[in-house]
Amino acid sequence: MNDAALLRERIGRIFTLAPFVGDLGIEFIDAGPGWCETALAVAPRHLQHGGVAHAGVISTLADHTAGAAAQTQCGEGEMVVTAEFKINLLRPGTGDRFDCRAQVLKAGRALHVVEAEVFGRRGAERILVAKFNGTMAVVRV
Amino acid sequence: MNDAALLRERIGRIFTLAPFVGDLGIEFIDAGPGWCETALAVAPRHLQHGGVAHAGVISTLADHTAGAAAQTQCGEGEMVVTAEFKINLLRPGTGDRFDCRAQVLKAGRALHVVEAEVFGRRGAERILVAKFNGTMAVVRV
Amino acid sequence: MNDAALLRERIGRIFTLAPFVGDLGIEFIDAGPGWCETALAVAPRHLQHGGVAHAGVISTLADHTAGAAAQTQCGEGEMVVTAEFKINLLRPGTGDRFDCRAQVLKAGRALHVVEAEVFGRRGAERILVAKFNGTMAVVRV
Amino acid sequence: MNDAALLRERIGRIFTLAPFVGDLGIEFIDAGPGWCETALAVAPRHLQHGGVAHAGVISTLADHTAGAAAQTQCGEGEMVVTAEFKINLLRPGTGDRFDCRAQVLKAGRALHVVEAEVFGRRGAERILVAKFNGTMAVVRV
Repeated sequence: MNDAALLRERIGRIFTLAPFVGDLGIEFIDAGPGWCETALAVAPRHLQHGGVAHAGVISTLADHTAGAAAQTQCGEGEMVVTAEFKINLLRPGTGDRFDCRAQVLKAGRALHVVEAEVFGRRGAERILVAKFNGTMAVVRV
Repeated sequence: MNDAALLRERIGRIFTLAPFVGDLGIEFIDAGPGWCETALAVAPRHLQHGGVAHAGVISTLADHTAGAAAQTQCGEGEMVVTAEFKINLLRPGTGDRFDCRAQVLKAGRALHVVEAEVFGRRGAERILVAKFNGTMAVVRV
Repeated sequence: MNDAALLRERIGRIFTLAPFVGDLGIEFIDAGPGWCETALAVAPRHLQHGGVAHAGVISTLADHTAGAAAQTQCGEGEMVVTAEFKINLLRPGTGDRFDCRAQVLKAGRALHVVEAEVFGRRGAERILVAKFNGTMAVVRV
Repeated sequence: MNDAALLRERIGRIFTLAPFVGDLGIEFIDAGPGWCETALAVAPRHLQHGGVAHAGVISTLADHTAGAAAQTQCGEGEMVVTAEFKINLLRPGTGDRFDCRAQVLKAGRALHVVEAEVFGRRGAERILVAKFNGTMAVVRV
């Protein structure tokens, strides 16, 4: 396997090894240096009382995708944990499916700052529903 | 029923009517003017790959409890939606159970600012694992 | 004057009427629908003990520029106030001059969500030193 | 001098050595393990166009006080820099004087999480105008 395929495989494992991510139904789509893309098919159990996706579902999707993007910047024996994040819920979380893309804004030795966007999809339409900004701390394992 | 019991019943419904909250296992404990308390028994499916609770689980617990605390400040025909929140994950989310308490810091006409704390419990020990601060927007329905 | 010039003039007044903005030395550069650009020539009095610009200087520049960008989305008799913001200080605030650009991410009836970037300049070099994300509340006056 | 006096002197220097803090007029009041208190006499040059203190002034006061509180947790050869902060402007920044108190929520090896409150004073009245929450990164010098 080439480097790109190895990175993709390493990042994909962050998704298969996290029980809550599997339980929720988050799918790993792709990753490269400094970025990661995921998706989630919205099911009735993901909803809030108003019939839109719960802020917690959208936050989990953004946080995990951002952590994976940060992980692409880590070396051997390093892993990241979320130190803090802020999320703005910009529009109601409607749609059949969410797409998420996370991008590292600044990689550091101790901290990676990552942004992520969550889009709601209904057929061909794609609307920005949330913007995430978080700090991932690098832990030596 | 007296006012306190009516408020408790009204806030309790925010938990039973939200599918994701039931799916996750969040329990409504109590509420009063400007505050709400909840709990969550940690199950294997809530975990992150490191064996601690996923940041998304802790965020969902804090967000929903904060929304409920804000809802106690709302009048007839008003409901709140999360506009934005920040959460600091202070310590690994270990423990058999999480306790959460949310408190309104400032109630307004259009916005309620709410803080929440999530504690991890292991037997009699109780450790602060996360601090949440969010803005809830009041929507007329 | 055409609409673009009128908007520019109206937004420029937000800078001349705010004493702290004049005191600090923030310059209004340009504005259009949903965005605003400003600059600040760094002086010794802006510094932190480490010799770099104080986080408060960078925050003020970002906040005021973001407020002005939000104001471009307001109608007659509306003004914005900062409800909350988060700022990530990504790199030391070095440079002779800061450039700031703010962009409205989502305009609403009651809230405008705005992002801003602050760049440090040293000659031709231009480095991202901070990323700002804030919620501006619309007030009827 | 005893330990308390030595700490107070060490933290006080963070204020006298930062030009922007002197320029703004921030006064160091007191500090102890994990906390710091400051004040600012509001002058006309601190104002926003609406006649209340600029969010940037309040943010600078909170950020510097929080940094000083974090510094009390540092050892020899360590200093802190602000990695990120969020601030909620809860009420208009009116008053003749601001009081600020910062408290470390969680001290770590690489990061200190600090909260701060800013109160507006008018005579004997004291109103919470802002709540700050930030992450301070420890730098070895």
